[in-house]
Amino acid sequence: SIGRNILCSRCISTLHSIFPKHENFAIRHNGPSKEQQEQMLKAIGVKDTEDMINQTIPKQIRLGKDLDLEDTVCENEILDRLNLIAKQNRCDWRSFIGMGYYNCSVPRTIVRNMLENPGWSTPYTPYQPELAQGRLESLINYQTMVVDMTEGLDIANASLLDEATAAAEAVSLCFRHNNRRKFYVDEKINPQALEVVRTRAQLIGVEIFVENIERMDFSCRDFSGVLIQYPNTEGRVFDFSHVIEDAHTHGSLVACSTDLLALALLKSPGELGCDVALGSSQRFGVPLNYGGPHAAFFAVRNDLKRLMPGRVVGVTRDAHGKKVYRLALQTREQHIRRAKATSNICTAQALLANMSAMFAVYHGPEGIKHLANRVHNAALLLAHGIHKAGHYLVHSDFFDTIMVHMTSGVHDIYRRSGEKKINLRIYNGCKIGVALDETVVEHDLDDLLYVFGCEQTAAELAAELGGKLEGHLSESPLRRKTDFLTHPIFHKYRSETNIVRYMKKLENKDVSLVHSMIPLGSCTMKLNATAEMEPISWREFANIHPFVPIDQARGYQELFKELERDLCEITGYDSICFQPNSGAQGEFTGLAAIRAYHKSIGENQRSVCLIPTSAHGTNPASAQMCGMKVVPVKVDKSGSVDLLDLQKLAHKYAANLSAIMLTYPSTNGVFEEGIRETCDMIHELGGQVYVDGANMNAQVGLCRPGDYGSDVSHLNLHKTFCIPHGGGGPGMGPIGVKKHLVPFLPTHPVVPPPGSLVSDARPLGVVSAAPWGSACILPISWTYIKLMGAKGLREASEIAILNANYMAKRLEGHYNILYTGTNGFVAHEFIIDVRGFKATSNVEAVDIAKRLQDYGFHAPTMSWPVTNTLMIEPTESEDKEELDRFCDALISIRKEIKDIEDGKVDKEINMLKMAPHTLESVSADNWQQPYTRKQAAFPLPYLKPDDKMWPSTGRIDDIYGDKNLFCTCPPMEAYEEEEE
Amino acid sequence: SIGRNILCSRCISTLHSIFPKHENFAIRHNGPSKEQQEQMLKAIGVKDTEDMINQTIPKQIRLGKDLDLEDTVCENEILDRLNLIAKQNRCDWRSFIGMGYYNCSVPRTIVRNMLENPGWSTPYTPYQPELAQGRLESLINYQTMVVDMTEGLDIANASLLDEATAAAEAVSLCFRHNNRRKFYVDEKINPQALEVVRTRAQLIGVEIFVENIERMDFSCRDFSGVLIQYPNTEGRVFDFSHVIEDAHTHGSLVACSTDLLALALLKSPGELGCDVALGSSQRFGVPLNYGGPHAAFFAVRNDLKRLMPGRVVGVTRDAHGKKVYRLALQTREQHIRRAKATSNICTAQALLANMSAMFAVYHGPEGIKHLANRVHNAALLLAHGIHKAGHYLVHSDFFDTIMVHMTSGVHDIYRRSGEKKINLRIYNGCKIGVALDETVVEHDLDDLLYVFGCEQTAAELAAELGGKLEGHLSESPLRRKTDFLTHPIFHKYRSETNIVRYMKKLENKDVSLVHSMIPLGSCTMKLNATAEMEPISWREFANIHPFVPIDQARGYQELFKELERDLCEITGYDSICFQPNSGAQGEFTGLAAIRAYHKSIGENQRSVCLIPTSAHGTNPASAQMCGMKVVPVKVDKSGSVDLLDLQKLAHKYAANLSAIMLTYPSTNGVFEEGIRETCDMIHELGGQVYVDGANMNAQVGLCRPGDYGSDVSHLNLHKTFCIPHGGGGPGMGPIGVKKHLVPFLPTHPVVPPPGSLVSDARPLGVVSAAPWGSACILPISWTYIKLMGAKGLREASEIAILNANYMAKRLEGHYNILYTGTNGFVAHEFIIDVRGFKATSNVEAVDIAKRLQDYGFHAPTMSWPVTNTLMIEPTESEDKEELDRFCDALISIRKEIKDIEDGKVDKEINMLKMAPHTLESVSADNWQQPYTRKQAAFPLPYLKPDDKMWPSTGRIDDIYGDKNLFCTCPPMEAYEEEEE
Ligand SMILES: Cc1ncc(COP(=O)(O)O)c(C=O)c1O
Ligand SMILES: Cc1ncc(COP(=O)(O)O)c(C=O)c1O
Ligand SMILES: O=C([O-])O
Repeated sequence: SIGRNILCSRCISTLHSIFPKHENFAIRHNGPSKEQQEQMLKAIGVKDTEDMINQTIPKQIRLGKDLDLEDTVCENEILDRLNLIAKQNRCDWRSFIGMGYYNCSVPRTIVRNMLENPGWSTPYTPYQPELAQGRLESLINYQTMVVDMTEGLDIANASLLDEATAAAEAVSLCFRHNNRRKFYVDEKINPQALEVVRTRAQLIGVEIFVENIERMDFSCRDFSGVLIQYPNTEGRVFDFSHVIEDAHTHGSLVACSTDLLALALLKSPGELGCDVALGSSQRFGVPLNYGGPHAAFFAVRNDLKRLMPGRVVGVTRDAHGKKVYRLALQTREQHIRRAKATSNICTAQALLANMSAMFAVYHGPEGIKHLANRVHNAALLLAHGIHKAGHYLVHSDFFDTIMVHMTSGVHDIYRRSGEKKINLRIYNGCKIGVALDETVVEHDLDDLLYVFGCEQTAAELAAELGGKLEGHLSESPLRRKTDFLTHPIFHKYRSETNIVRYMKKLENKDVSLVHSMIPLGSCTMKLNATAEMEPISWREFANIHPFVPIDQARGYQELFKELERDLCEITGYDSICFQPNSGAQGEFTGLAAIRAYHKSIGENQRSVCLIPTSAHGTNPASAQMCGMKVVPVKVDKSGSVDLLDLQKLAHKYAANLSAIMLTYPSTNGVFEEGIRETCDMIHELGGQVYVDGANMNAQVGLCRPGDYGSDVSHLNLHKTFCIPHGGGGPGMGPIGVKKHLVPFLPTHPVVPPPGSLVSDARPLGVVSAAPWGSACILPISWTYIKLMGAKGLREASEIAILNANYMAKRLEGHYNILYTGTNGFVAHEFIIDVRGFKATSNVEAVDIAKRLQDYGFHAPTMSWPVTNTLMIEPTESEDKEELDRFCDALISIRKEIKDIEDGKVDKEINMLKMAPHTLESVSADNWQQPYTRKQAAFPLPYLKPDDKMWPSTGRIDDIYGDKNLFCTCPPMEAYEEEEE
Repeated sequence: SIGRNILCSRCISTLHSIFPKHENFAIRHNGPSKEQQEQMLKAIGVKDTEDMINQTIPKQIRLGKDLDLEDTVCENEILDRLNLIAKQNRCDWRSFIGMGYYNCSVPRTIVRNMLENPGWSTPYTPYQPELAQGRLESLINYQTMVVDMTEGLDIANASLLDEATAAAEAVSLCFRHNNRRKFYVDEKINPQALEVVRTRAQLIGVEIFVENIERMDFSCRDFSGVLIQYPNTEGRVFDFSHVIEDAHTHGSLVACSTDLLALALLKSPGELGCDVALGSSQRFGVPLNYGGPHAAFFAVRNDLKRLMPGRVVGVTRDAHGKKVYRLALQTREQHIRRAKATSNICTAQALLANMSAMFAVYHGPEGIKHLANRVHNAALLLAHGIHKAGHYLVHSDFFDTIMVHMTSGVHDIYRRSGEKKINLRIYNGCKIGVALDETVVEHDLDDLLYVFGCEQTAAELAAELGGKLEGHLSESPLRRKTDFLTHPIFHKYRSETNIVRYMKKLENKDVSLVHSMIPLGSCTMKLNATAEMEPISWREFANIHPFVPIDQARGYQELFKELERDLCEITGYDSICFQPNSGAQGEFTGLAAIRAYHKSIGENQRSVCLIPTSAHGTNPASAQMCGMKVVPVKVDKSGSVDLLDLQKLAHKYAANLSAIMLTYPSTNGVFEEGIRETCDMIHELGGQVYVDGANMNAQVGLCRPGDYGSDVSHLNLHKTFCIPHGGGGPGMGPIGVKKHLVPFLPTHPVVPPPGSLVSDARPLGVVSAAPWGSACILPISWTYIKLMGAKGLREASEIAILNANYMAKRLEGHYNILYTGTNGFVAHEFIIDVRGFKATSNVEAVDIAKRLQDYGFHAPTMSWPVTNTLMIEPTESEDKEELDRFCDALISIRKEIKDIEDGKVDKEINMLKMAPHTLESVSADNWQQPYTRKQAAFPLPYLKPDDKMWPSTGRIDDIYGDKNLFCTCPPMEAYEEEEE
């Protein structure tokens, strides 16, 4: 009865007093105990948390209330609830839709030992290669795999976000290469890639011409390049060498979007002569994930390598001459070239690239060929049956995807596909696509034959054909003749025992959150709880094609709705768009929305974007990608945006002012006082405010960008909202916007998000391949919010701030804290300034960073946002003991520096310059340093031989690597030489 | 249509030629590539595999056909199929049945980082403590937790199999203690425990008297002891000190079966004065698992410790004086005392004990108290509501379980419980039990109140009571006053970040299959594939109470049926019983079945069991537990059973001959020729044949015990059938029997297995607490068989034999291979004889074992079955490279021994005697050995500093540990002292 449900609040609170919650997850998420919190509050000299927050966050922007979120329940309960949501996803349907997404028989051991293993999922981008050789080796396997499959191209990067953004990067690479403003796109590329290319090109002023490849004309030499898909979106395999020749003759580049599995049988884009190859590596070992995350690959000819976006792993040597890996080339191009950067890619898809690499390592060339032949044969057999059933095959040459022109019984075919729970690609009423994949079994073929009205089974057809399949690619002039995956690494790990040991060996070289704190300022390396991670490998989330009819993904839709509601409440925005699959993508999307908005009100001229010089490099890059003019704003001595300069510039550019990008609290770790006034001023001048949400970790439950004047922000879900960093991705960068920007949010050409269908929608375009970006990791953030609730989330922010202030306090007598707020407090991170040591002791930030490895720690963010400084962000998940250990280490290092300053120790041969010290060196028979082995490796008592994390190489030689760029697996002889 | 399904085999084979299987799992399971297999076959000098098998396995017992098993499919497909089976388990029902099994909110991080982590699930029992400090520390946490909760008892073991067998062990301990043949059992203990106690007691001639505790009379001094359950099976909490006093006065012992969570609020069994406490620790962090696996605990007073069954972890010191852990006391009692051993426990439940220990570490005392109070309050509230609804509460003092006498509306109550999908315990028509647990939430209480016809909700009742609950244990004289979990280890890990790091730190100290081969002869450390492991954590398998109505567990029942069918086919038996939850339990069950069979044909006098001296220690122990007289049979010089001796003894004892226990191939690693004749002879004399199935790994697909004459075998599923060893359990020991033994297979008092209900059933009794033993790990073996199929399984056996022979070949010039078969081949394992080195170089097996650690390897089985030898079993999962590395290590060690023999090196101070060498010692500033650091730690080139697995302690000092027995967490000061 209804009466039973309407309960007086007194009843409930009495019940709760005797029957409290099972567990408060916040005590699991937050590191310090109540007791430790008290100690730290005391240490920083405040009465209580409230006092600290009052002194840290400007009063006028404080959120005066509790967030309105659901009550929390314990982790098993929330997983039960999520399980009910998940079950609304219909993974009992089979999808043969293709379009860049394929079912994959993901080896379970790779799922368990990589994706589900915090040793692999929780490290950061390998900025400290000495502690990251494991994933660097795996990423170089990935690059080698890509270079091998695309044969003829010379260098591949360590992943991009998805096929569509990779395609857009190709367009921009061509444009940068020859500065021509026209670009051809094959009309037969995947629709989502086409739309992303269009959206991105338009903003940088490149005109896209969608054309049949036979009708492309390069003779006017005004096309920067052409993008062709091979096999094309309809599955067709064709020779386009003549187009390449024509393009090259006229100075245009050729980029090819391609399919790694098809390339096992097909002449590669490199052999055909392409300049760029790209695509998704999802079908190499990554689940469908309702669209993401997956890695995209990108490979280029040698002479284009300096234009290639994204990170590249290269080979170099260490201080002992040993062959080692590190990030090569334009590591964080955006930081170095800033206003000139043209790609904003930062977080990519490292974890997914690693899964794909391991898939290739596990299968090897013969395994990949087997899979390719098998699916190709299945497609030929199916095509034969469909043909016999009286339908017309639009293309006679194909790999695994066929396009059928149905000549009769169309209605029955749709009915039967429903009956068999089969999703096909529907081009239009009488054209249907079927994309097979490695998971297809006999029963699937029989069902498909039945759907198309073929009266024979696959076995009957096979017998009839006598096992001979016409049209096999092995008889085509386009057949592949070259080997691939020839490196020994792709031949050693066929047994599960061996691949597990290989994955474990690599894992054990790398520092991740399972070892110690990773205090990377701005990167927010906090707990990624198991309860948050588990759902992403549930089949109901993992095994759904992004383009299924939306009513087969009700679970996802429900999850998006709930997460949007919660994120709006947390940020103060009116709507959330989940399409951007990284923070930088979010920036681009938000700025593009601003552009679209200004255009809609007739102010298209507004194109100036003010960006403080302290901003993250992705900010100016994103602005440039939106065709904006970036105007840098100075930062004053206190680390805050120089308000005078800002005012001056804002007024100077008032007529053309599009936006300001602010990071809040600032990248210098300070809650700037004037934030609301700044926002107001910009608004008065007709501009819009973009607040970079990377630092939401200090704000949740305390203040909201949507309240203090921001119009749009991205949220790095992989920071504040607990998606693990994956060693360089996945990330997720949904944006929150105020109401006036809602109509401009992205749409999608295949599955338009409901919001983009309302009558006043004027979408800015499409920014990712999948309608909801990397949908499959959203359950992580959903679960985090549900587990923490309003109170827990606020506590997390408070403790993040408390931890940072405690560390700053402990360190302040030893190091110079570069910036603090008005009352001397920092936000959730702070910078220690080590610039002075160069003069006194020849010590630089990098030496301290490397020496920290000897103390068992990953260095803080180095030289960003200020060169030769270290930015420390402890996060709320670390407890006081860990913070103390880290401070002890830094203080001890300060003493080591002092010894140099005092002349007690040599300026060149000392523990800092020689750092890090490997196990190899401290256990060697010879020891010739002027300090002891113990001082080198166990300088403080908390370091114990039986659980110390060792750097696996000596200090990386970056200069050597830059001079001798080598970005695929080194030949085995290289190792042998070394051993001698 | 039917026509479509009837396919000519030609069609299918044509199809398969162009559309082959997606993947052959056997190449993942088996280590060596085809190429390596060829090389090894050549090395051992045979033409091909068939040739090798012909020379190894006696022709007359070869299985002349392929096993009739299902065709294989690839791992994702089989998991899809298993998922459909699993979904037939109705985990949407809630169970409040109790009886020793409770829902538990298992922290997901413990599931993922322990249960699902091969680093924790794949090590073996910690026989080599230097490589096992991680799980030893965790097990000592477990022991400490048990000793704390049961307060007053002094020492606990590292787990037993389940509560019921622990109860039986208590009976036998009491009997051993004072040799009295009567034993009282409280009539209110869990029915399954009662039946197991009865079954076991009867066989050792102890008479069980089931009695109300108020009516027990010890005055005749003929009762060895009494077993009481507290709180009892009906949930009642009561003071039984007077019974204890009475029992003690008359020389009887008191054992108490108890509940760890209840003890957070209740005076402990130790404080009450009990001598033994036991029970299940399932509700501390382990899922219901449809009955198992879970760990049982067992604690005793100090003066009973030498009678305590099972393994105990103790503290000792290593060669450097450092505090370390190791197995203490009667490790492998059965090996040492053999014919006198009275408990056959070997494999226990280490992994589950570790999960429980980590649960206690994570919650700490305040967390455990919170959970206990919460569930107790809930029970009080519920009881209040039920009482108000007019029903009668049978007991007024309870913890979390109440017994309700329904006074009206019985039919409606059953109907409503069905409507709400709630399982209750049904005593009889009008008595019902409700057992709450930590997962209970408000909604559950409301539903339960509704079921019992209470018109108020929990919140309304709470308000009405004003939050005051009558009958709270905190007001009872039985309330707990003592602290528990006071050791710092239970106070340090409240955040998930910290507990993950703790679990990882412990994991990283231990060698498991993720590092290198573990060639433990007889233990079969082979691949435990992820695809096999995944299903055990599916909620549909994990979250089912063992006593739900059988139609809620259809998935399990289907799985049992399929697995039984497959195992019958593999072994040649007619039926399989899944109740025994370890190999030793299987032995006991099989022998008990033989006894029951003989009795049924009027030959009850048959009680002699012939057992070769080479048999595993569990064999004689199991025979003794069946009340049999063990007669040892000699082993001849070739390592085989001495047929003459056997014949002599068999005839000598013909009239009383019950059985022979044979291991096949023998524990000496040989397929003995006369096996069939031996079986025939025993049968002729009226005896039965028990073949110990531990070595099935060499037989699957090649020969079958059921064919060559065996009547019954246990199958160590945790060996041949891929259940991981868990660092000492879980295991599973189902037995296969021939038809004539089927009627005698165990039954169960709560959920009798269907087979025990047929009309000719005459069950031998009950052997485990749960009807199907550790049901939840059976999916592992099911999946293994489905993935491998007939061909894959046979290949696995062949390769296991090939690998062993290859190693024997490589080693034979360096070591003496103790036993080989007629043609000079070994089976799947072999013994190297190192006895001679004592005289020539003072080197013993233990020195070689420890030195192997320096080479990165876990030692083979040491000193069993022959003292001072090493038994090597490589299994099929290791590839040739790993075998070669291991051989290289042994050969290199042989050279080191030679140097001692040759007088080049001192007999005391050498690399073998000093082994293992820790990272601490080789990185120390001082190095004073006569050999180099490199020789100590990196003696061969395959050993690399960046992935070497280090022993975390120096050599264990067993003697010190034996003299200073200490079996709980050492006080922190102990560590501090050490550091000074
Ligand atoms: C302040 C700031 N903005 C933007 C980004 C870019 O986010 P993403 O790496 O997800 O593209 C970062 C990434 O570290 C950041 O720190
Ligand atoms: C030959 C043999 N028999 C019996 C057993 C006992 O099996 P469990 O340890 O499962 O009780 C073992 C255990 O290793 C064994 O090797
Ligand atoms: O533990 C064993 O006896 O194998």
